Amino acid sequence: MEFCLIGAGFIGPVHAANIAAHPRARLRTVVDLDRAAGERVAGKHGATVTTSLAEALADPKIDAVVICTPPRTHAAIIEAAARAGKAIFCEKPVDLDLAKVDACARIVRDAGVSFFVGFNRRYDPTHRAMFDAIRKGEIGRPEMIVLSSRDPEISPPDYVKAMPYGIFYDTMIHDFDMVRWLTGQEPVEVYARVAVMLDEKTNPERDPDTAMVTLTLAGGALVHVNSSFRAVYGYDQRIEAFGEKGMLVSRNQQPTTLVRYDAKGIRQDPLHYFFIQRYAQAYRDELEDFIAAVEARRPPSISLDDGRRALAIAYAAMESAKSGKPVALKP
Amino acid sequence: MEFCLIGAGFIGPVHAANIAAHPRARLRTVVDLDRAAGERVAGKHGATVTTSLAEALADPKIDAVVICTPPRTHAAIIEAAARAGKAIFCEKPVDLDLAKVDACARIVRDAGVSFFVGFNRRYDPTHRAMFDAIRKGEIGRPEMIVLSSRDPEISPPDYVKAMPYGIFYDTMIHDFDMVRWLTGQEPVEVYARVAVMLDEKTNPERDPDTAMVTLTLAGGALVHVNSSFRAVYGYDQRIEAFGEKGMLVSRNQQPTTLVRYDAKGIRQDPLHYFFIQRYAQAYRDELEDFIAAVEARRPPSISLDDGRRALAIAYAAMESAKSGKPVALKP
Amino acid sequence: MEFCLIGAGFIGPVHAANIAAHPRARLRTVVDLDRAAGERVAGKHGATVTTSLAEALADPKIDAVVICTPPRTHAAIIEAAARAGKAIFCEKPVDLDLAKVDACARIVRDAGVSFFVGFNRRYDPTHRAMFDAIRKGEIGRPEMIVLSSRDPEISPPDYVKAMPYGIFYDTMIHDFDMVRWLTGQEPVEVYARVAVMLDEKTNPERDPDTAMVTLTLAGGALVHVNSSFRAVYGYDQRIEAFGEKGMLVSRNQQPTTLVRYDAKGIRQDPLHYFFIQRYAQAYRDELEDFIAAVEARRPPSISLDDGRRALAIAYAAMESAKSGKPVALKP
Amino acid sequence: MEFCLIGAGFIGPVHAANIAAHPRARLRTVVDLDRAAGERVAGKHGATVTTSLAEALADPKIDAVVICTPPRTHAAIIEAAARAGKAIFCEKPVDLDLAKVDACARIVRDAGVSFFVGFNRRYDPTHRAMFDAIRKGEIGRPEMIVLSSRDPEISPPDYVKAMPYGIFYDTMIHDFDMVRWLTGQEPVEVYARVAVMLDEKTNPERDPDTAMVTLTLAGGALVHVNSSFRAVYGYDQRIEAFGEKGMLVSRNQQPTTLVRYDAKGIRQDPLHYFFIQRYAQAYRDELEDFIAAVEARRPPSISLDDGRRALAIAYAAMESAKSGKPVALKP
Repeated sequence: MEFCLIGAGFIGPVHAANIAAHPRARLRTVVDLDRAAGERVAGKHGATVTTSLAEALADPKIDAVVICTPPRTHAAIIEAAARAGKAIFCEKPVDLDLAKVDACARIVRDAGVSFFVGFNRRYDPTHRAMFDAIRKGEIGRPEMIVLSSRDPEISPPDYVKAMPYGIFYDTMIHDFDMVRWLTGQEPVEVYARVAVMLDEKTNPERDPDTAMVTLTLAGGALVHVNSSFRAVYGYDQRIEAFGEKGMLVSRNQQPTTLVRYDAKGIRQDPLHYFFIQRYAQAYRDELEDFIAAVEARRPPSISLDDGRRALAIAYAAMESAKSGKPVALKP
Repeated sequence: MEFCLIGAGFIGPVHAANIAAHPRARLRTVVDLDRAAGERVAGKHGATVTTSLAEALADPKIDAVVICTPPRTHAAIIEAAARAGKAIFCEKPVDLDLAKVDACARIVRDAGVSFFVGFNRRYDPTHRAMFDAIRKGEIGRPEMIVLSSRDPEISPPDYVKAMPYGIFYDTMIHDFDMVRWLTGQEPVEVYARVAVMLDEKTNPERDPDTAMVTLTLAGGALVHVNSSFRAVYGYDQRIEAFGEKGMLVSRNQQPTTLVRYDAKGIRQDPLHYFFIQRYAQAYRDELEDFIAAVEARRPPSISLDDGRRALAIAYAAMESAKSGKPVALKP
Repeated sequence: MEFCLIGAGFIGPVHAANIAAHPRARLRTVVDLDRAAGERVAGKHGATVTTSLAEALADPKIDAVVICTPPRTHAAIIEAAARAGKAIFCEKPVDLDLAKVDACARIVRDAGVSFFVGFNRRYDPTHRAMFDAIRKGEIGRPEMIVLSSRDPEISPPDYVKAMPYGIFYDTMIHDFDMVRWLTGQEPVEVYARVAVMLDEKTNPERDPDTAMVTLTLAGGALVHVNSSFRAVYGYDQRIEAFGEKGMLVSRNQQPTTLVRYDAKGIRQDPLHYFFIQRYAQAYRDELEDFIAAVEARRPPSISLDDGRRALAIAYAAMESAKSGKPVALKP
Repeated sequence: MEFCLIGAGFIGPVHAANIAAHPRARLRTVVDLDRAAGERVAGKHGATVTTSLAEALADPKIDAVVICTPPRTHAAIIEAAARAGKAIFCEKPVDLDLAKVDACARIVRDAGVSFFVGFNRRYDPTHRAMFDAIRKGEIGRPEMIVLSSRDPEISPPDYVKAMPYGIFYDTMIHDFDMVRWLTGQEPVEVYARVAVMLDEKTNPERDPDTAMVTLTLAGGALVHVNSSFRAVYGYDQRIEAFGEKGMLVSRNQQPTTLVRYDAKGIRQDPLHYFFIQRYAQAYRDELEDFIAAVEARRPPSISLDDGRRALAIAYAAMESAKSGKPVALKP
């Protein structure tokens, strides 16, 4: 399978390297408006580079695209790629505009192309073991889910300015997807509270950098999500699922298991720094699953509707945080 | 110091044994309307027993009372004990009626007697180490507090019937006190959601047995509390305090540290079964602190106002759970 | 039961306090050649004090003695107490002279008095849970036992001078008892290696402060014990029992469960400082078991022969460390 | 760099896959006397296959060989590869015959080819973090090292028959290398004890399947190693390094971090099953280091002398186990 990577910044190089190392995939083209950025990624893996999306999509040898551009550009790229008949791997969020997402859904369906949303956490081996344990009934009916989802840093000011309240639709959107996936239930209500805790220098936009959300699921279970953009001890990603028969905990992960004992106490190194380190295996595994789905002509495991629903929860949380009132979610 | 224990059920025997073992205290009298119950406790420690509160309070040798009766009876007993000039150790909640609590406050102040509320968790060595670490600035400004507070069982139906929504003012009241104590801040808003997850047989009253609460503190920090009446793996009591410089975690505790490795995996025994086991040391230490305060003629460490404030938060949470709306708290 | 404490230093005050707090025991007399030392302990618990062992043993109200004097004095005290008909609780080692220990055994048997050796670790709740698990067959036949037994400090020079190679018969003797107790097997061979690692100032006697021992048990299982007198991170006491069906681990213990996360990593406080803290509960429980045995007129749980056998292993280890050769143990 | 893999069984496929995935390496040829076995590995990675070592070594395009054949064949292959001028990556042990190893050393030196021994554990990220911490002086002078090194299964009877006492020179040889590498010290004495614990069916050769070794290092530090061929709970690989300033612990590792809490207790999955899973990253990293050394024309990080010394310790341990006496090691 030959791939076109669209967007060479941030997460793009991770996908490029995974495609290059995949035994049944090849990185053919990198598209980026910034040719130099595109070349840095393309050069490492023997791919060509272009600044023209149309040119890349016109190449009949390209089977699939991976969309890593800023979220606001996703809908237009999805539309173009779908019309060109390419299989689509799209980073979350699907787009920032729910109406455009709905339009994308129609276009993708009509074009009959594969569409996959990169909710990478579903592929983390521990989260997946939790998913399996819930399916096997190990905790019985889920009653409470608690997710801690804390980043070690805030995005740069320009990024924050372009995506205010991104803590909901850019960060916690992963947690909303986790909840839907783990429980198989949709939330019916959301309540959110935010705070601005970082200083003026680090967060000049005064955008929410700290948040807590309560969800009520259709089956009655209660969900708590907390998030922060300054976990100084590393990428803090935990999930606990509590039910009638017990609790499952997906714990944090660390680069090594070394423990140091000295006169001051017992010490371990900080957690993995950020998602690139924590979810390295998950990024490889989601790519494999996408490729396997396209090869087998089965629908990819994470649908456009999954992407839309997580986004709708995020927007409801944003609305709640702004209004101070709980917001009902349509089924 | 000679003590009168009022209420021989439930937590009463714990206090009785601690008084008996304390080097500077003696259990003189046990008051219980059920004479047999009183005798069971009194007999173990060489105390006398009576069914008459008035008779007990008339004994000039009694320096202090420990009130362990049902919460609804507290205000009247506090009033009588205060008028009799006894130092008062009162189990939480101070009473169920906020107006009566306010009346108690006046009476206690006028009588000039010592008054202590039994928020035992403040004396847990690990929670206290967290308190000290926050005071020393180890995490800087607290930004998020997450408390898990789960019991292994629900109270008997009669008890539940008499105290509907007790999950807030009988159970989580401890957590509300923890938040105030740890952060030194008052909450300004509370939002609560409840669920009934136990079956008809275990929870015939269909009273909330599962709850999540969000608090916003005066300083902007966000707080999450979750509670359940069926933690099948034991008494699950954890606190995490997250701030600008890091996180503190008060972890669960277990009867032993034995770990078993076999072909099925790695296993430890369940957590301590319930609060009696988990907080055994805390119950001893709160008694010692109460006695030391009375001896030194200093105000006890936990005031009637502390008891009132925690109760007010609990009632606001109950109101929110019933109305589905956030409730503002008066400063 | 009325007790006479013989030896007010070191571990004496621990036993005195436990006797005083025990519901069925009373500390009547403290014997110490240093009257001031005796008075410090006796005064706290309302006991009388004497410098004369004979005087104390002549008191018919005394039911039992607890021997906490230096080991070299034990045999003579045991003999006197046995002849006076007192039940005997003796700190380990029984004595330093195996011939005297054998003589004690005869005298105690002839006098028909209860005799208990204070191998306190048998009463630690976690070690005991391991014992129970082995008995239940959880690991099948034990194949390897690994014991780490490290102290935070070396004894004072005078003490070390009086008891050279004490690392075997004063410290590891506990581990040798643990092995016998846990496995129910006797060792048939011992090999030991020692090192002097502390500096001249801390260990002026240049007595072994670091040691490793290999035991071969009668059933073929292999045992490793390691010990040091400078665990700077606290009292490091771990046991692992490995067998055909799995492994049991008795882990270290800490004063609190607080965990601190910051930019430098994840930290916990050091372990309990020393045995007084680590085995506080075990000291209470061994006293209770001794008292219960005397009351029930059953043999105490740890016999004089247990004390003798652990000592014999320690001496064989010392011989091996000196000769550099393995030493066979008689059955 | 183009590679020839010699020996397609057992660990061969691991090295083949790592070579294939390495950005600067290519698997060109697989040599195996069993052509079908060679084809299974070669086919996956587009390599050619041959049963003739001479033919493979005659190919001038081959830069390096990876030797994964049975240990007894190593010396002859090393000699042939060295004479053919190939860089050599050799699995441990270098050979079973110390005299042949010495001959290899001369031939390799004369041929001027790179030679690397596959002590993969040196590349484990946690062991390496321990190595770095010791180098930085975090524990000061090492005083005691304790290594647990337990396999989940014994090798097949044929393999065991061909390599009696392999527990020392095939398994613990890794631990002996770890000790030398971590401490930078050579052992001066070794004492070993073995046991046969598996039943007749699993261990028909009655070869030692359980062992404990004590090493004394030149600097006086004491070392304990224990090993078993039936850790039913998975591959148990731990190291602790104790010194004057504290202790470092390289803990076990698991496939996931999921923890399950239920009425029976707290459970985690077993450890990684075996070395293939536990040291997957280490195998990749040792290959990268070998390639980097060859490219930079620097000596590989693990020398033939390292391989010889670890083997000599293993043989001394075997001698001690057989004679029951400690064995001195020449410096």
